[in-house]
Amino acid sequence: MTTDASARATRRDGADTRRRALQIALQLFTEHGYERTSLRQIADELGVNKASLYYYFPSKDAILVALFEQRVDEAEALLAWVREQPRTPDLLETAVLRWVDSSTADKLRGVRFVSANPLVLRGLDGAGASGQRIGSALNAVAEELADLLPERSAENVLVLRMAILSINAAVGAAARRGESDAVVVAAARRAARALLREIGDRS
Amino acid sequence: MTTDASARATRRDGADTRRRALQIALQLFTEHGYERTSLRQIADELGVNKASLYYYFPSKDAILVALFEQRVDEAEALLAWVREQPRTPDLLETAVLRWVDSSTADKLRGVRFVSANPLVLRGLDGAGASGQRIGSALNAVAEELADLLPERSAENVLVLRMAILSINAAVGAAARRGESDAVVVAAARRAARALLREIGDRS
Repeated sequence: MTTDASARATRRDGADTRRRALQIALQLFTEHGYERTSLRQIADELGVNKASLYYYFPSKDAILVALFEQRVDEAEALLAWVREQPRTPDLLETAVLRWVDSSTADKLRGVRFVSANPLVLRGLDGAGASGQRIGSALNAVAEELADLLPERSAENVLVLRMAILSINAAVGAAARRGESDAVVVAAARRAARALLREIGDRS
Repeated sequence: MTTDASARATRRDGADTRRRALQIALQLFTEHGYERTSLRQIADELGVNKASLYYYFPSKDAILVALFEQRVDEAEALLAWVREQPRTPDLLETAVLRWVDSSTADKLRGVRFVSANPLVLRGLDGAGASGQRIGSALNAVAEELADLLPERSAENVLVLRMAILSINAAVGAAARRGESDAVVVAAARRAARALLREIGDRS
């Protein structure tokens, strides 16, 4: 390997380690609670020593902020995508389902974690700012899509926002019931479509 | 006044003071935050001295537990009512809308407070237990109503639970947007009906 190729491989390994560390941390945070999870446990599960993990994340808070940043990126990507689309009536449903359908196991875990630990997040400057950026991006998506509603009333726009947030509502309604992720996503999807029909169909 | 009548009048005044204290406390908790509200402020707003308020509520925590108990009573009353009704298909919508329509300004404030302060509640034994009792009562309502679904799948039952909790979803979607209570309740009502149509209508 040339020095360049070796540096690239190291960067790739690094990105992979970082990504896996985030996944493992989120799993431990949701299973055992944020307070009761230590950097050492995350390092152990990851199979590296604490110093190696420390290289990527100097604190648990830094992990939490990074987890949030992933969701910020997704919400902002959705907004960018919506802004690029032609303004056809079916964009309403396509865009909302794009968000619901992107609910991977990790994302559902994130939603569960946030519902269970809002104050942990509020205490963190970085995470609080990220939470607001997710909210702002989804607000902006709702604003873009609201233009496509047959009637743009405060009530209709609120129902549209409920459709976008149906995955959160489904996670909330499923709380402590042990429904599988597949059932939660399927219910959220049907709820989102039913809500859009309610405000979209004036025929 | 006879001694009896006077005792009754005193009890009535007491119940009224207690009720108003709860209302004022909830208002201050949601406006300024639980931590930043003192018993003295609540007493001042109520127009009594701290000792008088103390007679009803020896601590802020006691007020919070009492506020929760109000919601427990409402959820348990809904469950008792549902159990008394004949099992006709329209009970599904009637029962769900009964819960949504009972969303007074106070109840919406309570939902907002709980979303904003879940950890405050978890720290309180009494409130935690009340929260679970509200959850249990609404779970039991969902179980009763699920028997009326044309198809009782995990997915359909979850959408039914989302319909029951639509007021919480509407409050969540409206967060920090300043929608009026009337708009929030109207959106929740339309969402609940749309969700019930989604799982109820197999024709």
